[in-house]
Amino acid sequence: MNVNEVEKLLKDVKTGETSIEDALEVLKNFPYTDLGFARIDNHREMRTGYPEIIYCAGKTIEQVREIFRVMSEKENNVIGTRANQEMYDAVKSISKNAVYYPVARIISLQKKKASAPDSRIAIITAGTSDMPVAEEAAITAELLGNNVLRIYDAGVAGIHRLVDKLPEIKSCRVIIVIAGMEGALASVVGGLVDKPVIAVPTSVGYGANFGGISALLAMLTSCSTGVTVVNIDNGFGAGFAASMINKMK
Amino acid sequence: MNVNEVEKLLKDVKTGETSIEDALEVLKNFPYTDLGFARIDNHREMRTGYPEIIYCAGKTIEQVREIFRVMSEKENNVIGTRANQEMYDAVKSISKNAVYYPVARIISLQKKKASAPDSRIAIITAGTSDMPVAEEAAITAELLGNNVLRIYDAGVAGIHRLVDKLPEIKSCRVIIVIAGMEGALASVVGGLVDKPVIAVPTSVGYGANFGGISALLAMLTSCSTGVTVVNIDNGFGAGFAASMINKMK
Amino acid sequence: MNVNEVEKLLKDVKTGETSIEDALEVLKNFPYTDLGFARIDNHREMRTGYPEIIYCAGKTIEQVREIFRVMSEKENNVIGTRANQEMYDAVKSISKNAVYYPVARIISLQKKKASAPDSRIAIITAGTSDMPVAEEAAITAELLGNNVLRIYDAGVAGIHRLVDKLPEIKSCRVIIVIAGMEGALASVVGGLVDKPVIAVPTSVGYGANFGGISALLAMLTSCSTGVTVVNIDNGFGAGFAASMINKMK
Amino acid sequence: MNVNEVEKLLKDVKTGETSIEDALEVLKNFPYTDLGFARIDNHREMRTGYPEIIYCAGKTIEQVREIFRVMSEKENNVIGTRANQEMYDAVKSISKNAVYYPVARIISLQKKKASAPDSRIAIITAGTSDMPVAEEAAITAELLGNNVLRIYDAGVAGIHRLVDKLPEIKSCRVIIVIAGMEGALASVVGGLVDKPVIAVPTSVGYGANFGGISALLAMLTSCSTGVTVVNIDNGFGAGFAASMINKMK
Amino acid sequence: MNVNEVEKLLKDVKTGETSIEDALEVLKNFPYTDLGFARIDNHREMRTGYPEIIYCAGKTIEQVREIFRVMSEKENNVIGTRANQEMYDAVKSISKNAVYYPVARIISLQKKKASAPDSRIAIITAGTSDMPVAEEAAITAELLGNNVLRIYDAGVAGIHRLVDKLPEIKSCRVIIVIAGMEGALASVVGGLVDKPVIAVPTSVGYGANFGGISALLAMLTSCSTGVTVVNIDNGFGAGFAASMINKMK
Amino acid sequence: MNVNEVEKLLKDVKTGETSIEDALEVLKNFPYTDLGFARIDNHREMRTGYPEIIYCAGKTIEQVREIFRVMSEKENNVIGTRANQEMYDAVKSISKNAVYYPVARIISLQKKKASAPDSRIAIITAGTSDMPVAEEAAITAELLGNNVLRIYDAGVAGIHRLVDKLPEIKSCRVIIVIAGMEGALASVVGGLVDKPVIAVPTSVGYGANFGGISALLAMLTSCSTGVTVVNIDNGFGAGFAASMINKMK
Amino acid sequence: MNVNEVEKLLKDVKTGETSIEDALEVLKNFPYTDLGFARIDNHREMRTGYPEIIYCAGKTIEQVREIFRVMSEKENNVIGTRANQEMYDAVKSISKNAVYYPVARIISLQKKKASAPDSRIAIITAGTSDMPVAEEAAITAELLGNNVLRIYDAGVAGIHRLVDKLPEIKSCRVIIVIAGMEGALASVVGGLVDKPVIAVPTSVGYGANFGGISALLAMLTSCSTGVTVVNIDNGFGAGFAASMINKMK
Amino acid sequence: MNVNEVEKLLKDVKTGETSIEDALEVLKNFPYTDLGFARIDNHREMRTGYPEIIYCAGKTIEQVREIFRVMSEKENNVIGTRANQEMYDAVKSISKNAVYYPVARIISLQKKKASAPDSRIAIITAGTSDMPVAEEAAITAELLGNNVLRIYDAGVAGIHRLVDKLPEIKSCRVIIVIAGMEGALASVVGGLVDKPVIAVPTSVGYGANFGGISALLAMLTSCSTGVTVVNIDNGFGAGFAASMINKMK
Repeated sequence: MNVNEVEKLLKDVKTGETSIEDALEVLKNFPYTDLGFARIDNHREMRTGYPEIIYCAGKTIEQVREIFRVMSEKENNVIGTRANQEMYDAVKSISKNAVYYPVARIISLQKKKASAPDSRIAIITAGTSDMPVAEEAAITAELLGNNVLRIYDAGVAGIHRLVDKLPEIKSCRVIIVIAGMEGALASVVGGLVDKPVIAVPTSVGYGANFGGISALLAMLTSCSTGVTVVNIDNGFGAGFAASMINKMK
Repeated sequence: MNVNEVEKLLKDVKTGETSIEDALEVLKNFPYTDLGFARIDNHREMRTGYPEIIYCAGKTIEQVREIFRVMSEKENNVIGTRANQEMYDAVKSISKNAVYYPVARIISLQKKKASAPDSRIAIITAGTSDMPVAEEAAITAELLGNNVLRIYDAGVAGIHRLVDKLPEIKSCRVIIVIAGMEGALASVVGGLVDKPVIAVPTSVGYGANFGGISALLAMLTSCSTGVTVVNIDNGFGAGFAASMINKMK
Repeated sequence: MNVNEVEKLLKDVKTGETSIEDALEVLKNFPYTDLGFARIDNHREMRTGYPEIIYCAGKTIEQVREIFRVMSEKENNVIGTRANQEMYDAVKSISKNAVYYPVARIISLQKKKASAPDSRIAIITAGTSDMPVAEEAAITAELLGNNVLRIYDAGVAGIHRLVDKLPEIKSCRVIIVIAGMEGALASVVGGLVDKPVIAVPTSVGYGANFGGISALLAMLTSCSTGVTVVNIDNGFGAGFAASMINKMK
Repeated sequence: MNVNEVEKLLKDVKTGETSIEDALEVLKNFPYTDLGFARIDNHREMRTGYPEIIYCAGKTIEQVREIFRVMSEKENNVIGTRANQEMYDAVKSISKNAVYYPVARIISLQKKKASAPDSRIAIITAGTSDMPVAEEAAITAELLGNNVLRIYDAGVAGIHRLVDKLPEIKSCRVIIVIAGMEGALASVVGGLVDKPVIAVPTSVGYGANFGGISALLAMLTSCSTGVTVVNIDNGFGAGFAASMINKMK
Repeated sequence: MNVNEVEKLLKDVKTGETSIEDALEVLKNFPYTDLGFARIDNHREMRTGYPEIIYCAGKTIEQVREIFRVMSEKENNVIGTRANQEMYDAVKSISKNAVYYPVARIISLQKKKASAPDSRIAIITAGTSDMPVAEEAAITAELLGNNVLRIYDAGVAGIHRLVDKLPEIKSCRVIIVIAGMEGALASVVGGLVDKPVIAVPTSVGYGANFGGISALLAMLTSCSTGVTVVNIDNGFGAGFAASMINKMK
Repeated sequence: MNVNEVEKLLKDVKTGETSIEDALEVLKNFPYTDLGFARIDNHREMRTGYPEIIYCAGKTIEQVREIFRVMSEKENNVIGTRANQEMYDAVKSISKNAVYYPVARIISLQKKKASAPDSRIAIITAGTSDMPVAEEAAITAELLGNNVLRIYDAGVAGIHRLVDKLPEIKSCRVIIVIAGMEGALASVVGGLVDKPVIAVPTSVGYGANFGGISALLAMLTSCSTGVTVVNIDNGFGAGFAASMINKMK
Repeated sequence: MNVNEVEKLLKDVKTGETSIEDALEVLKNFPYTDLGFARIDNHREMRTGYPEIIYCAGKTIEQVREIFRVMSEKENNVIGTRANQEMYDAVKSISKNAVYYPVARIISLQKKKASAPDSRIAIITAGTSDMPVAEEAAITAELLGNNVLRIYDAGVAGIHRLVDKLPEIKSCRVIIVIAGMEGALASVVGGLVDKPVIAVPTSVGYGANFGGISALLAMLTSCSTGVTVVNIDNGFGAGFAASMINKMK
Repeated sequence: MNVNEVEKLLKDVKTGETSIEDALEVLKNFPYTDLGFARIDNHREMRTGYPEIIYCAGKTIEQVREIFRVMSEKENNVIGTRANQEMYDAVKSISKNAVYYPVARIISLQKKKASAPDSRIAIITAGTSDMPVAEEAAITAELLGNNVLRIYDAGVAGIHRLVDKLPEIKSCRVIIVIAGMEGALASVVGGLVDKPVIAVPTSVGYGANFGGISALLAMLTSCSTGVTVVNIDNGFGAGFAASMINKMK
């Protein structure tokens, strides 16, 4: 339920089109809808201006479908992350407008399109294997209303692949750096540009990578300033935070 | 090395002005020349306004003093972090304008003052013991030219202390949340506001806190969106990144 | 072995009814005899009312069936945790009264029903994905003779979903909080109510969650008082301990 | 904000007494107002009887003294944990009634004495070296108004030292087990009694003890039912939670 | 090649039945046979009196079969651990006398039977789920020529199950204690008997068990004397070391 | 693109066989070719003298095929590591000369053969199970133009298997030691020879091996001098570094 | 209280030299003496044949003195481990016969001397820095009545130092191997002899040694058979277990 | 024991000069005798030129002095690492020629000077705080007879400081990269040069640096080829291995 909907309700109360009892009933369920297994946060978009996000991993297909069903009845945009094809098929069966991004593992249900600011978000990966995380970040940022500059496979083992893109990177307002293994790319980018860098460690690698710990620790202890970090493989979180900064007025 | 320079090189080879051997040598270093001085100089120009930062821990008093001495000859502002009183005394002996912030452990040498934007940075701590980290963040932000809203000791064990301050917090452009122990404050703040939250885990606690790991992991896995994380006790890093965002145009 | 028995032994030594060698042998095991059957039997008597518990994971289907077969010959209630459908089918084949709770992964064989006290146990989860652990706790508590208040998906990212349930939560005698990721919910609940909180970290999450470590450490280092913790995903343990407290006279 | 208040707001909108803009503004903060003062105040009222707790470690002596000064002006009891002698001296200088328990490292300022229930709390340690943690638990419990049964140095390497105290232990309502090294005592006690056991791992030991991790993990994975765990060396937390249970009506 | 074989060779040289050249050829390959992928340690039994042991995990079926083939040509006993059914089938195809113990995952090829000493090895497990590890220890000990007393499912949650068996346990020369979860059984047994205890942590458990770390650390930090530890799930190692001690003269 | 190709291009420019415009076009793409998902480092062989290496794990089959396709158009040798059979089949379909080494999991596309120096690289494994890692090292070294001495299954539990190969090992210029479990072989070899030892910990083992950590830490803390270490299971890295040293002039 | 004392008491009861009341009084305190902070296990020597052991670390000087005082009144031998000079001075003041071994950090109070078996215990260290742990093991073994063969500084970096001593080592009944860093010595010794090896990892080293973890993991995952492990730096535990095996009949 | 010796033994058996029992005894120790003095002596001869190395940490001042005293009687060079001033004073008192390098913490006693090859070793550090480790590496390399190029404080946050020096770095034969925090410098250097890189992680940093783990893991998982790693802060090990490579013919 967004600001427009509440405003309309109040107007209807004022004009008498809606009785106080009925309005009360609506407002009572306003902050969330209780599905038993999930409490949908209707108040969210009003509170934060952002769409509802559903973390689909660990939910059953039925739960995902049901949550989308309830939400599709409102005007909100909905984003489902870490979603597989089966979940999408179930959502598709109740909402024709649902879109699936398989590399990013995102289901999107977009009721209205956000207008994008002029500034862009740069998304740089160290390797090709980091692409699923990068696409999760990129699609998230795009769905939230941003333009994205993708630069994939520009790791420090061949640093010139990054260098000649520097002018374009510097023209962006915020930069997402995605790297597994030793995660050095975040420090190198952070040392070359003066924009906020959001670093995403990935679980790409093996052995002493320990599922992304090596990159995570490296990014947290980066000697470059302006670098902040999100969870391992958390492309969504990086895209969301970058959008917050990019859309800042 | 840009296209024009390569073109000229080829022409010189054609005319014999440059031997094939010499041209070969140039081309071997081709991608890096690009990375060299000119570009870096540009980069520095762009960064004007940012002070030089010295991480003092692990340096000898003599090294700290010497670095400040060299820098004080330029027009730059200088910030020394993790500095103790002895280091400050040494710096003071060569530069009367040096200032020391003992709680923040920062030495500052300010040649020119940056003008602050209207928007503020909120700095919220869970407990009183987090103050040294908070002050490191606050003083850093202030020295970089920002106004800071300090809200200390507002942990989730008494969440009304935070709720109270929400309107003022929401009026800031970016929020730094500083907490040790279980670090829950970052998630709670992130769920209540729609501004970028930079979370700083602290080593405050004991036992299963493991020197800040409990708060670090909690902040990295936060279920709230818009939260990014810096290293344990890294008040400086949070203040610097927040300043980048706050001063964004 | 009590004082009277030792006194009798000494008398028998004095009268020669017992040889010194035999008495020596008895005294060698003296402190443990005490621990032996009589005392343990008393102990069991005292525990009457509690069912036998079988941890099924790691056991073969044959072992689970056989244990249930032996136990079903007594009057005791039996609970099998971490049981899969195959195990249930095997148990069902020998005992028609066995019941299976698939979400909770519990097999129950109930010979007599415990009467429930008036007070309830609240079970609160941060997300929908925590439901299997929550149901393990809830079914355990119910089988042990308690009424349960379930509040699922009330994580701190939308804290108002929790707040309007506070009056009902406060009416319970003990509260189980179940959360993965950063586990902040335990601290928030602990700060809002003055009832014992049993916190269950779950393995829900990814990356720096490390299979539940982030939530586990967060709950152990909670700044809220009255919070105790059980093993990751240990819904059964939380339900059992909560029952002990709830049924306390 | 309760239903009546929302109803009144709607009526005021209808009658024009409140503009739609103003009503919108109120509804935007709707769930949090709920969380605000009124509810929290109720909550505090309910908690009356519990003293204020100050975690002194990491605070300066001046901060500790100041907090005690402010608090001593109210009628509340105050407990300062992890306090050293210097902190106590500072507190003493402003409040003659402050008492210091050096082994427990607790400063107490007691304005009114809570009446203790008949039931007791048993506190059992594995070794003599666990005494500081045990005393922190014991003094906490006593200051909160409980009688305590202390059984120290009853580790499993000589289990008969525990066995002959079993009847007395079983007469208590809740049991705190404190152990370092392998922490086996919690499992053994949990297997012998049918009372809630709160286990406190201590950092007593060396090598693979890793500052208490061995005991912590052992207690979390205990095969005995009814065992919950608090942070390493957290005697205070165990004493507080045990008091909650012991004073339960 | 064992002592008897070498002795026979020397006698044949002395009597002229074998030429010096032929004997030299045999002795040249005596310490090991090089299969390319494996160097079979022929000298082992002579050096240590024990059969050759093959750790089958990580080897291909072909490699396992080939190693057994070469070995079956000598008089040595051979034991293959961590072997699956497929490996056994392959070995069986070349050596009819091979025996498979599926719970213990051991393939045995016994050319001569060792005579067992009068004293026994006790093997005690905390739970039924520890049985595969226990059987690996038991079969190993039996194949090496020992009699074994098996006491399974005697964990500390019901310590009377153990106490009962104490006299029989005390009659053994060495005791293997096998436990997962918190591994407390090793400390309890170590405190009750005055025989060497070899503790085997198992990966039985979940969550904070971390694949056996909880039991491993608990056993290493045991407060009972006379306890030594082997790797997680290493039933073979415990059985081998216990045999060394039990067969000691 | 290697030195010879660039040299030829420059000559053609000089002689007029190639126009400056055409040469410019070639050189513009010289540092890398952007495939969208991958930036192929064409400058690498010129910069380092070594072929391009593709880490295939985590890439899709299509991505691997496409990268090989682009590269096969140049004169460079290409090595793909951690490649499976499906990847090879795809590569084979576009380049008949591709070769697959299944144990080493390497795809090779060799346009020109490097001449090998007289000195050899010794590769020693502790066990048969370490063979896949060893073969990755050996094939890498051979493809880079080195002769390799393989000594497999020479672990310290039967140290004589190593000793009689010492003279041959000492004749090599650099030694790769590959071991899982406790990784002691690196220290033993390092103590017996005075050549650089590159140690590769493997994930062979179980329990406290923790996926190779035991061997990794052991090798890093080796008391023998001259030992350096690469990542767990990183046969490729060891082979590459050894080749650098072996081919040193 | 040992077997002889109990036997004498029984005889005195039989002859009437001691009344049943007096004997009862003695036997009542026989299982342990409660000092409040410590429960002295008087039954221990009767149960295990070994003296009482006091782990002094973490105890106050007063507590150590008091425990020794009570014990010195009986016939038992007493060993205090991890004791410092101050503790010894306090013990000395109440018992002239107390002896201090400063390298081993052991206080001994020997009322009767155990006769040593012919067989010896070998104690081998990798380096000189391991000596404090080695001496703790050696003195423990000697006080328990064993002869010890000390071979210090025989690490694998110079393996000939060990090989030399092999015949003497092989003549011992049980071997203690003590090593820090990579702990390879345990595997090497275990591969050369057919005697039980008790491995003691030490905290000697730095960096990736992590306070002894590298050696601990290496010893636990040793590829040599017959190796069991005790806690990091636990010389006492190794000496005690070795004595149990060496004195075995 | 070589073939000739075995042949002679067999002949002696044949002729009766040696009894079968004696021959059997000899053959039992056959592989190890081989490892014994002769071979080891050869080995030492081969190593002539390398000094004796003493790791002083953990040794007493007396032990250090005594070891130097014994060694100074031979012609060998001696290097003592991790030595403090007190140790040096003790060594100086017995050998006037001893030299102390306080930053590197090295004591050197040089009887003869090694001649240095033309090629140099580059030592690059990320920060000023890494200097003690770098000097340990540099002094070690110099004492072993190498010329060293020192480039300190060239971290990736200001990568132009490194690029500048590339030609000089590339002229060295082997490169040591020393960095704490995120250790990215090793990857960047490894990507720019085609020389063996020995990476040394340092404990410089705080928080998620965990005493050097962040840099260690980053270096082990480096995406650049040709990088091998030594223990945290192990400047000596890097200097030694680099010397081996640099002095290679």
